[in-house]
Amino acid sequence: MSHSVCVVGSVALDSIKTPTGSADDVLGGSCSYFSVAASFFAPINMVGVVGSDFPEEERAFMESRGINLEGLEVVDGATFRWTGRYHENMNNRDTLDLQLNVFGEFDPKLPPSYRDSALVFLANIQPGLQTSVLSQLGSYKLVGADTMDHWIEESRDDLLELLADVDILSINDSEAEQLSGERNVVVAARKILEMGPKSLLIKRGEYGALLFSANDVFAVPAYPLETVVDPTGAGDCFAGGLFGSLAESGEFTGKGLRRAIVYGSVVASFAVEDFGLGRLKTLSREEVEERYKAFMSLTDFHS
Amino acid sequence: MSHSVCVVGSVALDSIKTPTGSADDVLGGSCSYFSVAASFFAPINMVGVVGSDFPEEERAFMESRGINLEGLEVVDGATFRWTGRYHENMNNRDTLDLQLNVFGEFDPKLPPSYRDSALVFLANIQPGLQTSVLSQLGSYKLVGADTMDHWIEESRDDLLELLADVDILSINDSEAEQLSGERNVVVAARKILEMGPKSLLIKRGEYGALLFSANDVFAVPAYPLETVVDPTGAGDCFAGGLFGSLAESGEFTGKGLRRAIVYGSVVASFAVEDFGLGRLKTLSREEVEERYKAFMSLTDFHS
Repeated sequence: MSHSVCVVGSVALDSIKTPTGSADDVLGGSCSYFSVAASFFAPINMVGVVGSDFPEEERAFMESRGINLEGLEVVDGATFRWTGRYHENMNNRDTLDLQLNVFGEFDPKLPPSYRDSALVFLANIQPGLQTSVLSQLGSYKLVGADTMDHWIEESRDDLLELLADVDILSINDSEAEQLSGERNVVVAARKILEMGPKSLLIKRGEYGALLFSANDVFAVPAYPLETVVDPTGAGDCFAGGLFGSLAESGEFTGKGLRRAIVYGSVVASFAVEDFGLGRLKTLSREEVEERYKAFMSLTDFHS
Repeated sequence: MSHSVCVVGSVALDSIKTPTGSADDVLGGSCSYFSVAASFFAPINMVGVVGSDFPEEERAFMESRGINLEGLEVVDGATFRWTGRYHENMNNRDTLDLQLNVFGEFDPKLPPSYRDSALVFLANIQPGLQTSVLSQLGSYKLVGADTMDHWIEESRDDLLELLADVDILSINDSEAEQLSGERNVVVAARKILEMGPKSLLIKRGEYGALLFSANDVFAVPAYPLETVVDPTGAGDCFAGGLFGSLAESGEFTGKGLRRAIVYGSVVASFAVEDFGLGRLKTLSREEVEERYKAFMSLTDFHS
């Protein structure tokens, strides 16, 4: 039987413009992307906050994915909203508008039923809040965390305190450079591992990902896609697929961890094929397995 | 027994500045990098031109690698010289000085002994000259080619004529975008394959490489290196390792091609560890095999 994964992060309504289209008020936020991605593999316990305007259909969608919403607090007011526009080169984007709304006062509280979650993922929120979530959990087996440039700059001490308790830190390459002060990714990884995390996943978007542990490095390319509609949430979906797969297999190191990273890549590769969580709404586990096999074929020179 | 590889391109003396050091008048040029890299796997027949100032020790070095220099013409005058400076981000560089010298009048002529080379690699020179080399060869089995932004812009018709006869085109991602007019690498590759080449290798530097054929895609990450001293010639060394391995195995498709691409990555990963061809001067085939095994371990999730 799968372990369950407790995840805390943002739940948002996003409005997204890309060079080829746009979408308004779609389900977004790190916690939503992570949870839906992870739900293909394991039971998910979500911790977040939304306003009274949060659409019933999005709640129903997440419940249909087996996501436990007991820890999704509903507060009088408006849900977190983000509006962004991607450049012609979709590695770059501008935030056009950001309204924290009820998320600005987010103080995550775990329902008692969540406290036995074996895995926990602390998506991108203030590091002090990430630590507070961890302290509310019982006997967890594996802690994952993400962060962002803002916290690395503004809450470095809180972040370093958190990192001592993290098993897998999942960040992108520019965050790794900022956190370590090192441009070379191998040197950066070594410095970050010295800060506490047992493993470091560096996400490189269309170029794939690297996993560094004390005595091991794993590299996986991204799945080459002909159409990238919307990169929003790809990193959170990567982490969701990764932690979902770890929860499902119970193998947190070695081959189990490598396979989980490939599952993360697979789910992320689907996520960018439509706006928001559009593609994941129709995705099946069979399609996930098909693309996993395609990934094996894409990268195989071992046989 | 290995097939032999005929290669035509530039032979130069390079002066290189990087953020951490510099080297003056070191052996460079696409033909030199390719030949030395390929010489770990197969006999190489070099076609190029140098001036009367070309150092005897560099000639002796190449001969010590078993490279046939019968087609390396020596002309009164000075050898091609390039001076460049890399930025802090070594993906970017400026050419500070370029003196074509005797290379400006290069008109490649193949010695009769080269005409039975089974493989030919047309490194980056004017596409009309690349075609002229091909027409001087007998019954070759496999044609590889490289090109650059200048020829894509200035000699597009000559280049398209050449591409009809190319088995493996080896270019970098910005050249693929320029040649195809497409930013998405999968769409770009499809368009370029329609121009003639049976396979397209897209080199992405520290992010690895992609091989596209009609019904197959192969992706390999780059070997993560803690120290990159000088990226000059890495792409030529990649092609050299690739074509050397193909010549050695005689397997030009499928698994043989994939293994050859990994050998290309391996040799390129050594090449950047020192200025110019410094690292390859001491490299052994045993070290190549060790890093090939490290590459398998780096990328394996298949077992």
